[in-house]
Amino acid sequence: MHLYESHIPSGNVYKIQLLLAHLGIQYETTTLNILSKPSETRSDEFLKLNPSGQIPVLVLDDGTALAQSNATLYYIADGTPYLPRDKVGKHKVLEWLFFEQNSIEPYVAVLKFHTYWGNLATMSEAEKKNLKDRGQTALDSMERHLEGREWFVGDAYGIADIALFAYVVHAEVIGFQVGDNVKAWIKRVQSTEGHVPIRKDPTGQCPL
Amino acid sequence: MHLYESHIPSGNVYKIQLLLAHLGIQYETTTLNILSKPSETRSDEFLKLNPSGQIPVLVLDDGTALAQSNATLYYIADGTPYLPRDKVGKHKVLEWLFFEQNSIEPYVAVLKFHTYWGNLATMSEAEKKNLKDRGQTALDSMERHLEGREWFVGDAYGIADIALFAYVVHAEVIGFQVGDNVKAWIKRVQSTEGHVPIRKDPTGQCPL
Repeated sequence: MHLYESHIPSGNVYKIQLLLAHLGIQYETTTLNILSKPSETRSDEFLKLNPSGQIPVLVLDDGTALAQSNATLYYIADGTPYLPRDKVGKHKVLEWLFFEQNSIEPYVAVLKFHTYWGNLATMSEAEKKNLKDRGQTALDSMERHLEGREWFVGDAYGIADIALFAYVVHAEVIGFQVGDNVKAWIKRVQSTEGHVPIRKDPTGQCPL
Repeated sequence: MHLYESHIPSGNVYKIQLLLAHLGIQYETTTLNILSKPSETRSDEFLKLNPSGQIPVLVLDDGTALAQSNATLYYIADGTPYLPRDKVGKHKVLEWLFFEQNSIEPYVAVLKFHTYWGNLATMSEAEKKNLKDRGQTALDSMERHLEGREWFVGDAYGIADIALFAYVVHAEVIGFQVGDNVKAWIKRVQSTEGHVPIRKDPTGQCPL
């Protein structure tokens, strides 16, 4: 396998790296500069792999290119302990994967990006408030769901947890309120066998 | 089946209604006021069905509650002509479903909402520009992908098209630039057997 990643750490890339670490799957990487103008993900070569010009892309040994981090998690986890085998269980995982891409990532990931690599100082208060309000609403939904639960779907750690963990692990440090249930869940995820943290930022702009 | 929908037309609800119309599946509906303060989707009863407090929710005859519109499309379409049967084909559909929820819906749907039911006049120019720029980037990716293609995945109309169509059909009228490939695809979707348009807004605020 071959993983296309960004030079600065990306939660969407990290999800794939975390699942592959759990599964003990080896892979090669190509690192693209996403802050160059234009981004290296906008090259003709990369757009052939993924027309939306986004990382990560995971290329399987037969040449199949998998794009969209959560779709890739679902593909790789199918048949492993990280995805339920029954249809309703699979659906419940997809619910949280879509929730993550629609209600967490556009707000928590975007605010994280602007905090460390973007233009937080030049964003209007209204823009920042919109990101914080929408992200907080989503984090509050997670907190409610975890009441009395250890993991997001069923009684086992899996790709719903991996997808949600990738950005939520840093939600508090960039200004969100994170409840006790989510904090305890973050510690459980970090204690799973084979867990690896997101890698450090080589530019030094992000201290996490 | 029982569908929980909003009183004003929602593209996320419409996706489910369009697939069920194609499949000839009958269902009952419960209509919730999402503009009341608080929204009727924040009641304890509804939050039990969907902890994220979002419509649509489709309750199956056995009581299973399906949330997240694109996850519900995937569940219902499985085994029908609207979803490929092979693993890579299913993955390609999921790629576009996640793209829709991450790169189209947070920008095109949010701008549509603010245009007709929200506070477009009070939004800052920076906020509007952010929605327009991010939505336009996604629409441009769709335009590129459709070059030489009739449908988003493989050679058949399916739930990737249904999910993307729900909001993109109104992208031009709310100010986005929609290319010729996307325009021709919109007409193809509207010409499919059993197609139904999104229903009218009972409040009259949206003329579409």
